[in-house]
Amino acid sequence: MSEDFVNKIREFIVAKTLLEKNDRVLIACSGGADSMALVHILFELKDEFNLTLGMAHLNHKIRKEASEDQKFVRKAAKQLRIPFHSKTIDVPRLAKSKGLTLEEGARQCRYDYLHQVAFDHNYNKIAVGHNCDDNIETILFNIIRGAGVAGLKGIQPSRGVIIRPLLNTSKDEIKKWILARKSPFVIDRTNKEVAYTRNRIRLRLLPYLKRNFNPEVDKALLRLSSISTEINGFMIGETLKAIADLTIHRDKSKIILDLECFREYPIALRRNIVREIVKTITGFNYPPDYQAVELFLGFCGDRRFGKKIFRGGAIAEIIGDKITFGTLTEVSLKKRIELPGQYIDPRLGFLLSGALLDSIPSETEIRTTEKNISYMDFGKVKGPVIIRNAVAGDRIKPLGMTGHKKVMDILAENQIPSFLRQSQMVLTIGSKIAWIIGIRASDEFKIVPQTKLAIRLEYAE
Amino acid sequence: MSEDFVNKIREFIVAKTLLEKNDRVLIACSGGADSMALVHILFELKDEFNLTLGMAHLNHKIRKEASEDQKFVRKAAKQLRIPFHSKTIDVPRLAKSKGLTLEEGARQCRYDYLHQVAFDHNYNKIAVGHNCDDNIETILFNIIRGAGVAGLKGIQPSRGVIIRPLLNTSKDEIKKWILARKSPFVIDRTNKEVAYTRNRIRLRLLPYLKRNFNPEVDKALLRLSSISTEINGFMIGETLKAIADLTIHRDKSKIILDLECFREYPIALRRNIVREIVKTITGFNYPPDYQAVELFLGFCGDRRFGKKIFRGGAIAEIIGDKITFGTLTEVSLKKRIELPGQYIDPRLGFLLSGALLDSIPSETEIRTTEKNISYMDFGKVKGPVIIRNAVAGDRIKPLGMTGHKKVMDILAENQIPSFLRQSQMVLTIGSKIAWIIGIRASDEFKIVPQTKLAIRLEYAE
Repeated sequence: MSEDFVNKIREFIVAKTLLEKNDRVLIACSGGADSMALVHILFELKDEFNLTLGMAHLNHKIRKEASEDQKFVRKAAKQLRIPFHSKTIDVPRLAKSKGLTLEEGARQCRYDYLHQVAFDHNYNKIAVGHNCDDNIETILFNIIRGAGVAGLKGIQPSRGVIIRPLLNTSKDEIKKWILARKSPFVIDRTNKEVAYTRNRIRLRLLPYLKRNFNPEVDKALLRLSSISTEINGFMIGETLKAIADLTIHRDKSKIILDLECFREYPIALRRNIVREIVKTITGFNYPPDYQAVELFLGFCGDRRFGKKIFRGGAIAEIIGDKITFGTLTEVSLKKRIELPGQYIDPRLGFLLSGALLDSIPSETEIRTTEKNISYMDFGKVKGPVIIRNAVAGDRIKPLGMTGHKKVMDILAENQIPSFLRQSQMVLTIGSKIAWIIGIRASDEFKIVPQTKLAIRLEYAE
Repeated sequence: MSEDFVNKIREFIVAKTLLEKNDRVLIACSGGADSMALVHILFELKDEFNLTLGMAHLNHKIRKEASEDQKFVRKAAKQLRIPFHSKTIDVPRLAKSKGLTLEEGARQCRYDYLHQVAFDHNYNKIAVGHNCDDNIETILFNIIRGAGVAGLKGIQPSRGVIIRPLLNTSKDEIKKWILARKSPFVIDRTNKEVAYTRNRIRLRLLPYLKRNFNPEVDKALLRLSSISTEINGFMIGETLKAIADLTIHRDKSKIILDLECFREYPIALRRNIVREIVKTITGFNYPPDYQAVELFLGFCGDRRFGKKIFRGGAIAEIIGDKITFGTLTEVSLKKRIELPGQYIDPRLGFLLSGALLDSIPSETEIRTTEKNISYMDFGKVKGPVIIRNAVAGDRIKPLGMTGHKKVMDILAENQIPSFLRQSQMVLTIGSKIAWIIGIRASDEFKIVPQTKLAIRLEYAE
């Protein structure tokens, strides 16, 4: 039985490649049955994988016995001659100050501490004692609170440096094994307090479901979870492919998709495309909520204009036949530059260079030049030359026109999404806008037959 | 408010194209609030869609008041001048005899009856009063009993001729509307009996979840369901594409897939491919259970031989680089035929024809002929010619060999799955196997230099 148990866990470790030879593993250890079982098992597998082990305990000061537990774990580490790391944090106080529940606060402190110890002492993995029952609770919890299909995946065997070797094993099996071995462990009374949501799921809801609806509800949930995880993986792959296919342009500040093509994708993929892009833009901290995506997809269906701001500051905007995703970045730049000369902006990452030309460029040359290049009559360059972002109220006399126009209107006509218009760079000479960079030059600085000296301006990201 | 309610339902009907002009709609009506609301709403939409309406009521004899309800619905139909159809079935007795729960029995009787009335009286749609609360219960029920991701989709707005115009509307809204209109309805006491699983979900579990975990658990479940439905639709599309890509051969008795290619598909698709094929093979009556698919996918991963029988009689068998799906069909045929001549088997759907040739075919001709054609020396055709299925013990002297071999071994070498070997046709002449049709001819009937008259046999499906 004892051997079977260890074998089962070894097989899971191998199947999910949780351990590799020479790993340095920090074991998170509360002193309870799960984490003590984890310590003993990894100790048994130590030589086989040539592991370097460490144990970490966080005294979260939630329970009276917390300090007793800390001593217990320290003693266990000493007996096994495993290096021991420990720290005391007043979680209740910290949680209160951050507006978190005790559960959330404890969780955050624990993971922060574990990562810190791993970093400081060069552990490349952190093993935690989550078991199959924890997973079932998480899945049910996610279903109830409405975490969507992604939430169905529950706890994963590994995530980053975190590994969960017991995830395939039930709490019951673990308890039996550790009792049979006569290894001591502490009992966490907080696990029995119905006040915690997770405990309520474990102690009340799951037994209720088993008794009244399906004695095998655990299996049903794990199966649902495992199928969903597979489907989710597949969907993410298809979504990334679709994003690659749809992307017209991508740089550090925006992603532009082809709207017509986007509309042709099945709804499930369209939803995921928006989700993935918004997640990426917000640094994975803010998965967009369902309603927001739904609303935006509604715009995409029939409108040619529409804007949606997602939490975390991501924006999606439809103009014409494009969708532009980006963030609400406030660009504020106002810099005097010398012409001829070069200006490099390391923060915004661009280069503006202006060089005098040996000859006057021909009309064809001027007409066929790239958008990031502009030729001007150097004789007209009088007064300070400034590069700055466009602001409401800016006006220009566009090349080839007699009247003036609002810069913001020109940007709109050029399908620059509204949230990027404030980041548009303009070049002013004296009090006039000489160039909406990359978009339109002014008529007032253009090369004419009388021009004696021409300057060539180039903007490069 | 009253107008809003009807508009909301009209919009749902239009969005999901539940009704079209000139539809003939049979309304399933228990007399309860939902179905009475449905009757009144469809009555209001009657002219707009030019509907022909009918009402059907099944007296299931489960409750004492059942006959009262029947009378009530009859009267309501009369007042609205809607044709009324009704029948009494002793559901409790029938359920008992079929080993069904009362709920299952009532459900089956109701749908059978509705389809019968629709057929007899030429209704092209059947409207039922399911609402959003029913849907939430179904989703939760499916999660608990472990119906997989497909089960998350819950109740659909339409399925075949069944339409559910109230599916987007809560029971509460319906009750309020019908009370405000002062339209009478009956109260189904069985809805309040906790003995029924669905009622237990509605009356106990959902309120418990709302109180203790998430007041908006309904929304969470509907959202999960709607996302899952979309994903499911996408997955089915991808699965059918994958099946088309992987299929090497398909006929009425089998589908053969390329195993190597199959292995390259992501696990989520592999699982769905097996599920879809097995469902198709069993006429959609037996979706395979998770464990069975899991087990078979295990075989596909590393083995070159393996067989799995699914419930409903579908079989999947791996031989070499192919997976063959089929059913356990017992082919029993033994038919004497005349040569030259033609034999058509309408049941098994094949034709065997034998025609004498004007000249003796050349060796090249014989060697390069198709597998479904065989040439024989007609002079050697003595004794009765019989076409029958192969049986264990059959032996043949294969063309070009001196010894005899078991027919079953030859079939195995030719990668005919074991479950199809008993359906293999052979042609016997006298007591000898002359041709394993489409696979191998006998050496004993071959054309030799001395042959005076040749016969050409052809097998066609």
